[in-house]
This record gives sequence, structure tokens and C-alpha cells, in this order.
Amino acid sequence: MIRVGFVGAGLQTRRRAPIVQASSGTRVVVVSAQHLASAQALARQLGCEAAAGWEWVAERDDIDAVVICTPPHLHHAIALAALESGKHVLCEKPLARTLEQAVAMVRAARSGGRVLKCGFNHRHHPGIQRVRRLVEEGRLGALYFVRCRYGICGRPGYEREWRADPHIVGGGQLMEQGVHAVDLARWFLAPFQEVTCMLGRYFWQTGSLEDNAFVLLRTAAGQVASIHASLTQWRNLFSLELVGRDGYAVVEGLGGSYGTERLMIGRREFDAPFTEDVTEFRGGDSSWKEEWQEFVTAIEEGREPIGSAVDGAEAIRLILAAYEAARQGTTLKLESGEPAWQASPAARA
Amino acid sequence: MIRVGFVGAGLQTRRRAPIVQASSGTRVVVVSAQHLASAQALARQLGCEAAAGWEWVAERDDIDAVVICTPPHLHHAIALAALESGKHVLCEKPLARTLEQAVAMVRAARSGGRVLKCGFNHRHHPGIQRVRRLVEEGRLGALYFVRCRYGICGRPGYEREWRADPHIVGGGQLMEQGVHAVDLARWFLAPFQEVTCMLGRYFWQTGSLEDNAFVLLRTAAGQVASIHASLTQWRNLFSLELVGRDGYAVVEGLGGSYGTERLMIGRREFDAPFTEDVTEFRGGDSSWKEEWQEFVTAIEEGREPIGSAVDGAEAIRLILAAYEAARQGTTLKLESGEPAWQASPAARA
Amino acid sequence: MIRVGFVGAGLQTRRRAPIVQASSGTRVVVVSAQHLASAQALARQLGCEAAAGWEWVAERDDIDAVVICTPPHLHHAIALAALESGKHVLCEKPLARTLEQAVAMVRAARSGGRVLKCGFNHRHHPGIQRVRRLVEEGRLGALYFVRCRYGICGRPGYEREWRADPHIVGGGQLMEQGVHAVDLARWFLAPFQEVTCMLGRYFWQTGSLEDNAFVLLRTAAGQVASIHASLTQWRNLFSLELVGRDGYAVVEGLGGSYGTERLMIGRREFDAPFTEDVTEFRGGDSSWKEEWQEFVTAIEEGREPIGSAVDGAEAIRLILAAYEAARQGTTLKLESGEPAWQASPAARA
Amino acid sequence: MIRVGFVGAGLQTRRRAPIVQASSGTRVVVVSAQHLASAQALARQLGCEAAAGWEWVAERDDIDAVVICTPPHLHHAIALAALESGKHVLCEKPLARTLEQAVAMVRAARSGGRVLKCGFNHRHHPGIQRVRRLVEEGRLGALYFVRCRYGICGRPGYEREWRADPHIVGGGQLMEQGVHAVDLARWFLAPFQEVTCMLGRYFWQTGSLEDNAFVLLRTAAGQVASIHASLTQWRNLFSLELVGRDGYAVVEGLGGSYGTERLMIGRREFDAPFTEDVTEFRGGDSSWKEEWQEFVTAIEEGREPIGSAVDGAEAIRLILAAYEAARQGTTLKLESGEPAWQASPAARA
Repeated sequence: MIRVGFVGAGLQTRRRAPIVQASSGTRVVVVSAQHLASAQALARQLGCEAAAGWEWVAERDDIDAVVICTPPHLHHAIALAALESGKHVLCEKPLARTLEQAVAMVRAARSGGRVLKCGFNHRHHPGIQRVRRLVEEGRLGALYFVRCRYGICGRPGYEREWRADPHIVGGGQLMEQGVHAVDLARWFLAPFQEVTCMLGRYFWQTGSLEDNAFVLLRTAAGQVASIHASLTQWRNLFSLELVGRDGYAVVEGLGGSYGTERLMIGRREFDAPFTEDVTEFRGGDSSWKEEWQEFVTAIEEGREPIGSAVDGAEAIRLILAAYEAARQGTTLKLESGEPAWQASPAARA
Repeated sequence: MIRVGFVGAGLQTRRRAPIVQASSGTRVVVVSAQHLASAQALARQLGCEAAAGWEWVAERDDIDAVVICTPPHLHHAIALAALESGKHVLCEKPLARTLEQAVAMVRAARSGGRVLKCGFNHRHHPGIQRVRRLVEEGRLGALYFVRCRYGICGRPGYEREWRADPHIVGGGQLMEQGVHAVDLARWFLAPFQEVTCMLGRYFWQTGSLEDNAFVLLRTAAGQVASIHASLTQWRNLFSLELVGRDGYAVVEGLGGSYGTERLMIGRREFDAPFTEDVTEFRGGDSSWKEEWQEFVTAIEEGREPIGSAVDGAEAIRLILAAYEAARQGTTLKLESGEPAWQASPAARA
Repeated sequence: MIRVGFVGAGLQTRRRAPIVQASSGTRVVVVSAQHLASAQALARQLGCEAAAGWEWVAERDDIDAVVICTPPHLHHAIALAALESGKHVLCEKPLARTLEQAVAMVRAARSGGRVLKCGFNHRHHPGIQRVRRLVEEGRLGALYFVRCRYGICGRPGYEREWRADPHIVGGGQLMEQGVHAVDLARWFLAPFQEVTCMLGRYFWQTGSLEDNAFVLLRTAAGQVASIHASLTQWRNLFSLELVGRDGYAVVEGLGGSYGTERLMIGRREFDAPFTEDVTEFRGGDSSWKEEWQEFVTAIEEGREPIGSAVDGAEAIRLILAAYEAARQGTTLKLESGEPAWQASPAARA
Repeated sequence: MIRVGFVGAGLQTRRRAPIVQASSGTRVVVVSAQHLASAQALARQLGCEAAAGWEWVAERDDIDAVVICTPPHLHHAIALAALESGKHVLCEKPLARTLEQAVAMVRAARSGGRVLKCGFNHRHHPGIQRVRRLVEEGRLGALYFVRCRYGICGRPGYEREWRADPHIVGGGQLMEQGVHAVDLARWFLAPFQEVTCMLGRYFWQTGSLEDNAFVLLRTAAGQVASIHASLTQWRNLFSLELVGRDGYAVVEGLGGSYGTERLMIGRREFDAPFTEDVTEFRGGDSSWKEEWQEFVTAIEEGREPIGSAVDGAEAIRLILAAYEAARQGTTLKLESGEPAWQASPAARA
């Protein structure tokens, strides 16, 4: 039995904790929030303890894993406390506010031999899982490019949420939601060697934080990822398109406000009408459950999880490089990615 | 009656000439091709004369307008011959192979007081026309960004077509088909001040000519156009998306192999289900007819046509700048666009 | 505060009870099931009492309303017990197994002055609600016809569910799921004067119970409702189409396994491209909540609810007539509907 | 070389004659119309002779095949004249105004050993062809039902067209356009043993001719075809759905004003997300060309064509039975279909 503590009592905990509770082999022991009352309300529903603050993370030894569902500025401290006291950690994206923090988190997990997973639940969406298998089986041939459009309409008062506070977050919409798109681009095309970017601050009064980001990334082989993250997409949109030598795949929708998740697969074929396999994943979003299962399995098998802390840190590195490219008005060269991690990741910050 | 001569007897002439013939007020007098036999076959169907070569363009005085449907390397010479002998010209896109040629063509038209229109038929698609009106009426509010994905799957043997010969064309897929996307971006957002670009040479053995181009353009106000032109889009795709402060518009499909043209219009609205007005333009592609009508009306009214030679030259300028940005691996600053044209456009090449 | 008891602890109670619990002004007091253990599990989650059987319905006087979520053969007895002891009742569809039972239930509600509502939640889907308003406002003009295709793929073992037991249910797929389609047809077009029907028993080994039903209904004015209820629709489908003199409306999807609910509205217009208003109701199915609100409001206002017991009984009357028309191989005349109810509804059985 | 004459110079001839002209092995020799001038205009475009009236059909011996594109009341006389003078005939649908006429036409073709094909071009649509092959290969399993919704919005002045004149046509919208749906239902499910029908006369002032028809047909095995033909479908619609034991197929759109033709194929599968193969037949309507090829091949091979005269006559028989069922308000039994044709088809009228 993996005994689990949640830090944070907001939307993400309300989404994830019931899954932990319902999974055989895992159990929620405690839920905490800044204010005890918030934690208590949720704890009652879950049938677990409530706590205030997050100091218990380091102190309790009846907890095997911690799920961090706080705003980003707390990820680093909580994760270090958990990892250093021997706990596994599933941490909401983005992994941290800065690359230095993220790198420190990776190192803490490695030195302690604990699993640190970043909350890239999009990798666990059924359509995206299938695309991953298609690509691994070579069904699309060598990949050429990835396009990802990911946008949301926001909501009144967004400017007053913590997501709009530069002291809490590490970036604007590219860091907040676009980090999923960057992670997916990395999953299919990395390592990237070049990045360029244009940012927009259009509708939302979020100061230095962009509400739109257009990013181009390129690998050594010349493959391109084109990413647009938007907080002014008045009709919520998720679209991930991959094109390879022999075919293509498109995932549209993520369920809920993004519409039914659909997967379309087609082949390069010049002498026939356009034909696609279309799969609709109607019903609920299963990614949270699948992600939890992956976290548990990685713990059991003592291996890196899909959507690891390194993935979380690399996504931050790319996004910060994109910001820098936008600032300088240039295309930045990137170091070669994962191998460097083994040695001294922080050096490349 | 406007008496019209066509140079070229390929697909574009077969598409355009019947429209000229069917319009009241215009008549095809002659069709020419490199080889007389090609022209004769088409001339028989049209009920007009056939000619070889294009020297007749300068010589005949029973022609009021010339439609140039040859490969790009001939546009400049033919257009100058036509304009200098007092004829109006509708010239297929891209307007020329180089910016210098395009500028010379603009000057020839201006000095002679003739209409020179670039074959940007996409401006005349009914969905795009409606978006234009929406924008002019302010229905979308201040525009934020334009995304255009325009791709085609090519066909076997493409490498051996003139489109793949760098001596004939001025660029790869961005110049060939992407020029429409660049022109539409300009129509809605120009003048652009910055451009960055990544090119791909993936599937087609077209030497130095890209088969994929990813372009980002930005205006002084920070508006961004994101364009992807692709010759490896295995399922033909046209999608133009505009988002503004108060709403958005999407045009998908162009008829024929791109699927039914559809226009979707939505508004920014935070407290309601997602609602769109969807219009389907079923049936044939009317853009060729509309474009011809605009050319004729511009002649009659002695004014610049929609999709003018300046538009044609500016699109080339942007594309060549995108190529240069890709080559240098940077974001290029652009001069301020149309006003400069009045004085000395060539200077900015 | 309306104090509510649920009979049954299956899917429908799990769906409805949390809504009752979450609504201000209503509270679940007790949940019962045939076996106490089943009720207890659910009661724990809801924070209410558990009970076995349904005899408490008549006995308890601390309950204001009863929600009946049992199989159909129990509806009649439970509803009478509840109504006669002064409780309001929301009863799952179909209202009863036979028309006689349904009529008795209507009478019991009327004589006691209690609200008896049939669980026609489809009337409360947001798309259907909007269509209703459109029709009431005359936006479609006089209605011509209604088409409803409603199908589901079933699930392995369906033959062994109570839905396949003729001693428990009053009919096959037309009674089970098609009753919603019949009710909607009645809402928009009734009273019907003629009915014809063809039944299929194709895939499911459900004995005398049809797995497909094709029904045509006609009003005195000649309006037609065409209904197909299917248990062999391998991709779940809900589609309701209304066409009137001036326009049309289509609702597709119901959320969940039926796909996102979409409403399309168009007008009769001969000289323009086809244009529709499309609304997508992404996210969860709100009909259960809306239905509960209507039940509560009807209680408060002392009026007949939308989707009343008369509606429930009339739908059964039409379905039984359809079955009879299929058996006889003819088109049956129907008596004139609601007015007759006032006097002596049972007479027409 | 098959030498072809066309009777009629309207839309259908303008559609079909260029295909005949462009096919290797067939040539248009003459086009006729009631008024010579109408024929001459078209003949000029086609490069063939023009004639007035249709008496030449019997008289000329330099014609091998006649294509009848007149209103229905002339089909019988022209076809008999052509067949009796040894010509093959392709006759527009519906084959004739009455069953007696249709039977006489079948007999004339058989006794003379000529090919008589009915213009059921829908059988030659690529999506429907594929469905036919799927069904023949048993990929859908035993068929359960066919639904066909076929509707059009009409056009102002429809009431004054010959289609609205009961002296010219043999029925309303069911006979005019619905005859395709009936023919397709027969192709997949016949022979039918029962028919019931409801008719509507809603919007169009076409006297006795229905503008809407709802038909149910059933085979001995209990399979059902549900057909709705409508002249008040304000957004043109063609949808053909087949469901069998193991899967289903849907064809939507016919190109042009009906939207891109799409084929969707799915399988019965209870434990997986809904998956379909979707094929889009973008571009022009190829059915006219395919139908012509079938006619020519049938002539060459001396066999019955797909969409034969018997098919044309049987569709009329079913439609007239549907009208009669609607008139009587009952479900009519039908005799057993094709076998009877061999002996004495007229007997069953």
C-alpha cells in the first residue's frame, strides 16, 4: 500500500485525490492546505486527515508519496522536503519556477533514488498514447514536423489569479499551459537545437506575462515543432498534429471544455481519396488515472516514469530559451539536451 | 468589350479563360503557348485564335488585357511587354521570381496608368471575403493574430515539374503556395516589422527549394501571423484563423481537394456554451470568377485592384526576408512597408 | 427544505442523489435498496440513512419527496404508496409497465394534489431546451416533421439484465430508450392521430422484446414524427431533427458516450450558402440538475411539471399503440390525446 | 465506337453528354430538344448535330444508343421507339410514369436483346460502391436495417416546374428524388414484403404531389428500410446508413450542394472507443462517368447493367405501393419481387 499525502486543496487535488483513493494499492492519508479549513472540507469527502501548511511533508514517516498541487513557487521547497525525507513525488507542471530549481529537484530525486514525476498528464491521454505507439512502431515513418495549437478562453478575473502573478509563476501562458505542448513536442522530436519565439500581450492585463506565445523549435535533423499557446482562444482548442514520411496523426480535443478527444490517422497516398481512421474517446478524461498508474508502476519498478522530472526540467529549459529568443529577437542555439543532464544540467541554464 | 489574350495554355488558363469567355464585357481573343499545337487545342474549345510564344503581347493592338499564366520566370518580361504596349495585366502568383522584377513591374504599371493585378484568387473566396467584411466592420475587435496552415500532398513526379526547378521559380513551397497565406496575413495585419522562419526539406527531392516553411511575422503593434506552408500535408489542408479582441473567424477548405469551404465565426463570451455561425459554401470554387470581376471593375474605375501588384511585390519581399531570416538563423527587422513603395520600393530589397 | 428519499441504489440514484444533496433547499434523507448492504455503501458517500425495501415510503413522515429509481415493474406500487401518503414523486421513465398502472398513478397524484413527474431528463438537455424556446417563439414557423434517431450499442450480457426481462419491463428498446424520443416528439408535435410501426429482433436474444423499432406518427395537421430506437447502433447516436416552414433545428449528442451535445439552427433561404448557428455544450450533462430544479419548482408553485405524469402515461399509450400497429400490420388511429385525460384517461387504454 | 443520341437538352444532358464525348469508344452524334434552338446551342458546344423532337430516335440507323433526359411522361414512348429500332437505352429516373409503362419498357428491351439502363447514378457514387463491396464481402455481417434521409430545399418557382405537374410526373418527391433511396434500399435489402408510408404536403403548392414521404419497408427476414424523402430539407442532405450484425457504414453527402461525399465504416465492438474509417471523396461527382462506363460495359458484355430497367420498374412498384399504403392507412403486403418478373411482371401491378 502506497500511503499518499496531498499538498494543496484546489482543483488539481480534487481531481487527483479521488483517483488515488479509488486505486487498489494506494490510499490518501492526508490533504493539506494553507488554511486548515480548506483542507478539512476536502478531507471529509475523501475520508482522510487534514493538515495546514506543508511542513508535515518532511516530518511524517507514515507517508510514502507526496502529490504537489500548489502554485509553482512552492514546488521546489516542498519537493526537496519530500525527496530528502525519502518520499516519492508527483509534482504538478510546470515542475518549478526556474531551471535552477528544477535541476535541484532532479538531483535530489536521483541522489535519493526516489521517483519524481512531473504532472504531464497529456502524455497519458488515450489519443496521444496511441500516437506514441504508432510512432514507436514506425507507422508514420520518419517524423517531419509537429504542430500544436493549445488555447483557452480564460475567465473573468484571470488577472487576479495566482496564474497572473509573476512572483508565483515562472512565465505566462507558454509556461502555464504551453508547457504541455512543449513536452509533447519533446516526446516526439527532441532534442531540439534551435528555438525562436514571438510573444503577445493582447487581452489580459497580466503585466510581463504573455497571453500568447508562438514558438518554433528545430532538431539537428531539421524537424520542426510549431507551437502556439494562447489565452485568447475564445473557443477552447487542443490540436496536436504530427506528419511523417509515411503518414500523419492528429489529436483534437481533450474532453470537457476542449470537446471530445478524437484521433485521426492517415497515410501518404497519392492515388486515392483521403482516408482516415478516426477514433473518438467519448466520456471522461482518463489521463489522470493513467498518469497515477504510471507513477505507481515506476515506483514499483524503480525506474524513471514517463513524464519524468528531467522532462519537466527540459521543458522549462526550452521555454526559458524561447523567452530569451523573443527578448533578443533571434533564433537561439540550444545545447544538445538530455546527455548533458547526466553530467551537469545546471551548467546549461 | 475588353479583348483578352492569354499567355500559357496550362491548368490556370483552362480555369480562367472560360470565365473570361462567359463574362459579359470580356472576350478571349487569343491563347498562346510555347508550342502552337498546345495553344490550338485549347483555342478550339474556347473559340478563339491560337498563337506560339508571347511576342504577340507587345505587337498586337487589338488586345486590351493580357492574362499571364506561365511559370514565374517569364512573368516579368511578358508583363513589361504588355504594360509598355498599353495593356492591362492579370499575372499569376507569385508576381515574379525576384523582388527587383516585381518592383519593375509595379513601376511599369504605374507609369503607364495600367491595371496590374496579381493572381491572389484566395482573397476572392467567399469565406475570406466575408471575414474581410467582418474585420472592416470591427466585428472581431482589434486583431491579435492570424494562423494559416496551408498544405498539399503533392503528386508523384513533382520533382520533375517546373515548380521544382530553381531556375524557373523564385522559391519553394512558401513562394509557390504559401504566397497566398502571406498575402492573406498582409491583408489582415500588415505592415509587418519582424520575420523569423524555419525551413524543411523533408520528402521531395527539390534541391535547395523547401517543401515546408514555418514563418512568424509581427507588426509594430505586436500582432503575429503564424504561417505554415507544406508540400507534405498528406491530406490537403487550408485553414485560416483570425482572433481579435471580441471574436474570431476561421475559414477551412477551399472546395475541391481541400474540402468544402466553411466559415466559422464566434465571439468572446465567458459565460455561455461555445457558439459559432457556420457557413458552408458548397459547390464550385467561385474565386476565379470573382477575381476576374474585380480586375474588370478596377480597369473600368481606373483604380488599384484588390490583390494589386504592390501586394504581389510585398508578398515576395516578405518571403525573401523569411528565407534570409532562416539562412541567418535570426529574426529580421523589416522596413515599414507600403508607404516606402511610393518613393523607392527597390531600395528595400 | 425538501426532504428526499431514494428507492433504488443503482446508476440512476448515483447520478441523481448527489444533485439533490448539492442543491440548496433539498436534502437526501434516506436511500434504500432491496439489500441493505447496497444502500449502505451509497448512503455512506451521501451522508444519509440507508434502508432495505421500499415499505418506508408509506410509513415515514419525515420525507417530502420520493425519487423512484427502480426497474419499471415496481414504479406503480411505490408511487402509489408515496402519493397516498402525501409525498411528491419523481419517477424514472418509463412511468410504469402498463397504461393502466400509469393512469392510476396520474389519478393518485391528482386526487392528492401532489407533483408526480416522469424522469424525462432529455427535455432538460440544454440543446433541447433551446429548441423548445425557438419553437415557442415561432422561429422555425409551423412545424412540419420531427425525426429522431436514438441508438446505443448495448453491452455484453445485456440479455441477462432486467431490461431484457419481459416480467419487469413493459417493452423493448422503444419503451426503454425510445420513450424519450416519443416524449420529445409529443412535446413538439402532439396530439398524434395515427401510428404505424415496424419492429426488429436482430442481435440481442431478448425474446419478445424488440431491439429495434421504427415508428411513424401523424397529427391531425399532417405533421409526421419518424422515430427509430435501436439497440444495435454500434456507435451511440442521438439525433433530433425538427423542420418547420421557416427553418430547422438539430440536436446531436447528449454528452458522454453520445458525444458532445451540439445544436444546429438554420433557416429556409434559397439564395445563400447554407448557414447554421452551431452551439456546443461541452462538459458534463446538466440535464439531471435542470430536471431536479424543475421538480422542485413545480412543487413550490403547485403546478404540473414539464415532463409530467400525463406525459409519461401518454408516451406509454403511444408506444403500446405502436406495438399494436406492428402486430396487426396496419396504421392505427389514436384518440385525440390530452383533453380526454381530463375526463377518464383509462377509458382509452 | 458507340454512336449516341441524346433526347433533351436540359441539365441532365449538359451533365452527361460531355462525359460521353470524352470517353474513348463513345461519341455524341446528335442532341435534340423540343425546340431546335435549344438543341443547337448545346450541340455547338459538343460539336455534334442538333435535332428537334425525338422522332429521329426510331428513324436514324447511324445511332447505337439513346440517352433519354426528358421529363418522365416521354420516357416510355421514346424508349420503346429506340429499343424497337435496335438501340440501347440509358433512361433517366424514374424509369416511367407508371408501372405498366415501365414493364412494357423492360419487355421491349428483353425481346430485342438490348440494354436498357435506368439512370440510378447514385449506385455509382464511390462511397456507395464501396459499401456495396463491403456488404458483398460480408464485412458488415447480416444486414439489419437501412436508413436513408434524402432531402433538398427546392427553389423558388418549383411549383411551376414540370416536376410539379402531375400530368408529367408519376409522383411527388418520393418518386422524383426518393426513387434513388428506394433503389438503394432494394440494392441492399430486397425483396421487401411489407410497406407502410406517411406523406406530407407542407410547403410547396404542388397539389396532389407530396413534398415529404416517410416510408418503412420490411423483408421476409425482418430487415427494415426507413426512408425519408423531403423537399423541405432546408439544408440539402443525403445520408445512407446501413447497420449489420458486425458493423455499419454511413455515406453522407453526394458532392456539390450536398457537401463532400464521406464514407464512414465502423465495427461492433463493445470494449473500445468508437473508431471509424472515414473516407472523403473530395472533388467532383464521378458517378455520371462511372454510370456511363457501366452502360457501355453492359452493352459490350451483353448483360444486364447495374441499375437495370428491372430495378427501375421495381422501384416504381414499391413507390406506388407506398402511396397506396398511405392512402389506405395500412401496411401493405408486397408480392415477392424479382422472381415474378421473369414470368409476368405486369400481373403484379
